[in-house]
Amino acid sequence: MTRKTAERRGALRDRLIDIAEVRMRDGGIAALRARDLAAAAGCAVGAIYNVFDDMTGLILSVNGRTFRRLGKDVSEKVAEVAEAPPVERLVTMAKAYLVFAAENPRLWRSLFDVEMSVDQDVPAWYLDELGRLFSIIAAPLAELHPDKSASEIDLMTRALFSSIHGIVLLGLERRISGVPVGQIESQIEFVLRNIATAR
Amino acid sequence: MTRKTAERRGALRDRLIDIAEVRMRDGGIAALRARDLAAAAGCAVGAIYNVFDDMTGLILSVNGRTFRRLGKDVSEKVAEVAEAPPVERLVTMAKAYLVFAAENPRLWRSLFDVEMSVDQDVPAWYLDELGRLFSIIAAPLAELHPDKSASEIDLMTRALFSSIHGIVLLGLERRISGVPVGQIESQIEFVLRNIATAR
Repeated sequence: MTRKTAERRGALRDRLIDIAEVRMRDGGIAALRARDLAAAAGCAVGAIYNVFDDMTGLILSVNGRTFRRLGKDVSEKVAEVAEAPPVERLVTMAKAYLVFAAENPRLWRSLFDVEMSVDQDVPAWYLDELGRLFSIIAAPLAELHPDKSASEIDLMTRALFSSIHGIVLLGLERRISGVPVGQIESQIEFVLRNIATAR
Repeated sequence: MTRKTAERRGALRDRLIDIAEVRMRDGGIAALRARDLAAAAGCAVGAIYNVFDDMTGLILSVNGRTFRRLGKDVSEKVAEVAEAPPVERLVTMAKAYLVFAAENPRLWRSLFDVEMSVDQDVPAWYLDELGRLFSIIAAPLAELHPDKSASEIDLMTRALFSSIHGIVLLGLERRISGVPVGQIESQIEFVLRNIATAR
């Protein structure tokens, strides 16, 4: 591939991600149609598949951006309270997660609407991003539990993240089984204070 | 409507629910097509809409069955340990929830794939079913926290259910952010023992 061709492909790739991001922000994954995307990007439908393996590849690229923004938000918020006790830092992170989800409901949901299991070939950059996010959750947990091994802390990180995710998910969707929106924050805090400091 | 017409409609309704249930069990909501359902039930496509307002009405009826089975499973399991301390009863219920979700993955997911928010007209029988399930979770919580008001216990019930749901959801989907399948049970127990007995 000549340099010019590579540049053109790269530009088309970025343009498609920009367009898809706006559509997913407004309508979720269901709002993506190859034909519309091609029209908006000024390319042939087939050209999409020259720069992405399939629509999932495009969605993953948008999700990658969302995930990096989420990671950045959470990191920045926790950096502001770097000197606070570990539990406060966990609460700060969980609240940042809630705010991000509330402000980007469809982009956030799209992160979980793509199948992405431990049995699949998940892109390495995505796993790295997840590792980074989990390591900032694990740090205060390790301070609270200096006796626990790294794998125990990892498990606790996952259980804690999943719990907060469940409360945010059912709560923000205003599901009949969820925590009322106005109480999500206090319930996240309640759960975190008790799990994080658990024996 | 004559009695005979009513009976015929009722029979078609039941037949459609039976057929839809099998399809949703195997392929989730996405596997439902009005044309296929009509062919399998031996009726015209339009006849479906004589007995259900729309496809969501049919899905809700299947979900109702699933939800009642779930409620029955959880109630039976907890009845077996009626004399156990409150935390043990909560752990028993959460494990029954996990087992039900693991054994009925698509039917269970379908419960959450239908929009069902507090802003909508959710059928009264569905809310009753939810109320029943939540009251059996609330009972041991109220024993553990005799000082808390009914609305505080309700909030705790929701936070606790959401947390367990999050762990089960991300875990069973084997998501890269979830708790590994073999550890879901122990993490549910860990979370419950700490939240449920919290101050």
